[in-house]
Amino acid sequence: MPGESPEAERGSTPARGRLAYFVSDSTGITAETLGNALLINFPAISFETYSFPFVDTVDEAELVVREMDGAADVGEPPLMFTTVKVPAVRAVLARARAVTVDLLSGHLGLLEEALGTTASEQLGQYHGVGDVERYFGRMRAVEYALEHDDGQSMRGLDAADVIIVAPSRCGKTPTTMYLALQYGLRVANYPLIDDDFEREALPSPIAPYLKRCFGLTTNPLRLSQVRHERRPSSRYASLEQCTYELRRAEELYARFGIPYMNSATKSVEEMSVVILQTIRDRDTTHRDKRKRTHEGVPGEGARI
Amino acid sequence: MPGESPEAERGSTPARGRLAYFVSDSTGITAETLGNALLINFPAISFETYSFPFVDTVDEAELVVREMDGAADVGEPPLMFTTVKVPAVRAVLARARAVTVDLLSGHLGLLEEALGTTASEQLGQYHGVGDVERYFGRMRAVEYALEHDDGQSMRGLDAADVIIVAPSRCGKTPTTMYLALQYGLRVANYPLIDDDFEREALPSPIAPYLKRCFGLTTNPLRLSQVRHERRPSSRYASLEQCTYELRRAEELYARFGIPYMNSATKSVEEMSVVILQTIRDRDTTHRDKRKRTHEGVPGEGARI
Repeated sequence: MPGESPEAERGSTPARGRLAYFVSDSTGITAETLGNALLINFPAISFETYSFPFVDTVDEAELVVREMDGAADVGEPPLMFTTVKVPAVRAVLARARAVTVDLLSGHLGLLEEALGTTASEQLGQYHGVGDVERYFGRMRAVEYALEHDDGQSMRGLDAADVIIVAPSRCGKTPTTMYLALQYGLRVANYPLIDDDFEREALPSPIAPYLKRCFGLTTNPLRLSQVRHERRPSSRYASLEQCTYELRRAEELYARFGIPYMNSATKSVEEMSVVILQTIRDRDTTHRDKRKRTHEGVPGEGARI
Repeated sequence: MPGESPEAERGSTPARGRLAYFVSDSTGITAETLGNALLINFPAISFETYSFPFVDTVDEAELVVREMDGAADVGEPPLMFTTVKVPAVRAVLARARAVTVDLLSGHLGLLEEALGTTASEQLGQYHGVGDVERYFGRMRAVEYALEHDDGQSMRGLDAADVIIVAPSRCGKTPTTMYLALQYGLRVANYPLIDDDFEREALPSPIAPYLKRCFGLTTNPLRLSQVRHERRPSSRYASLEQCTYELRRAEELYARFGIPYMNSATKSVEEMSVVILQTIRDRDTTHRDKRKRTHEGVPGEGARI
């Protein structure tokens, strides 16, 4: 049927890469996460990815199959990454002329055998609300993070799981938000400014919470670029000022024994995991530092 | 060696559930996401989960294996969910007395065959910075979200991909942050207040951007509970006031044709995916509403 396949829709525009579809009966976040983690192993190939979340009926599945078959008609068979569990929907998807990577079912079979039980017929609502207490904990953590962003509020700092400190524009805020949203941690962040460097002391509101502080630094050139975006040609953005602040911040971290890392070479995801590990190591009574066990992330049990 | 296994560490405390380990040579986010998505299918079994990110050397792997074997000595063999790619590290992990769910390698083999090429020897840095432009786009989106949270700034509203509107405490902020962090969307959010309901109009700063608005509602009882947490026994938190605001908000959405959903029954992940779909449908020139194709989420190509 014309206009129903992506090829037809694009008309004469050729596909920009090998087509890959993420098909899920829920949000599709798991399918995308793992699908992308697989595709990244083929850096020489360009992929054009499409997401089909909430494919939970036979009718929906038939539309997806028609789309994939339309693509197969005019090019190479597309890749399909799927996490769909419902047998009737799976049966429809299995008919698609696509290379199917079934992300869950094989593993589920293995787990059923190991656990001596069958998987629930209920849909795995992993990205649903799930454990309500844990979910609202994450939501409250986002609120907390907003209220305590950039030193906005001193109230409630004693409730912080971690306080991220750094000069302006080193990546405090995105890391704070990621830790709150994904892990439900109460994260405050606090800017370090010239006053602090001159006093060679932590800002007084956070000084009582030294043990909860985690520092960020970055590369002077990178910092200068980022600051120029905000205030072009300012002293604030000058390479000289950036170099000074970062050097003094690192001295401060060293003086007070504050763990820190360089945000220029790490993603927010990587930084968040490092900070999590640091908190867990700090909080554990077991002091064997080689041991990196910590409570399940995002939390005990599987229901999050 | 005493004190090195979780059992020994806990001393006489018994495991609270079947042990499951997420082992990764990177952040472990993929291993946790898919591992948890699998475990949730066994709701009758209690799991105790541990994450081991950054296991990228033989030495690290040996520590992990020792820990798992220690657990196997005193209980059922633990489950291990792994995304490790490095052959030498994989070889060590393969010796563990654990039920191993290898989340990537089998699928990689299938893809290698379909794509007629071998997977890169490079580590898949999926949760690394990856595509630098896309990464900094996400970071800028977080900034944008903060600056435009709760109607704080009118400047730059014309740059918003979506403006989430709702009465206070309906879940605007966490959804905004999730969309920014995960998908790099520029999301503003704006509160609806009694004035707007009396005028039966959208707040004037967002009125020009009607087509970008997305509404949230919730259940009056739920809203009242959430507001009581913030301002106990206030008129603001009263069931009567909450019922009024939600009813009027829904009337406003209907009058202006603003798409909306109920945040009481959906997680931020689910709401974000629904909003993404709405934006993509809105922006597509193809008007066949049954067709749900949209640009790959989080974006074209696999490198994010």
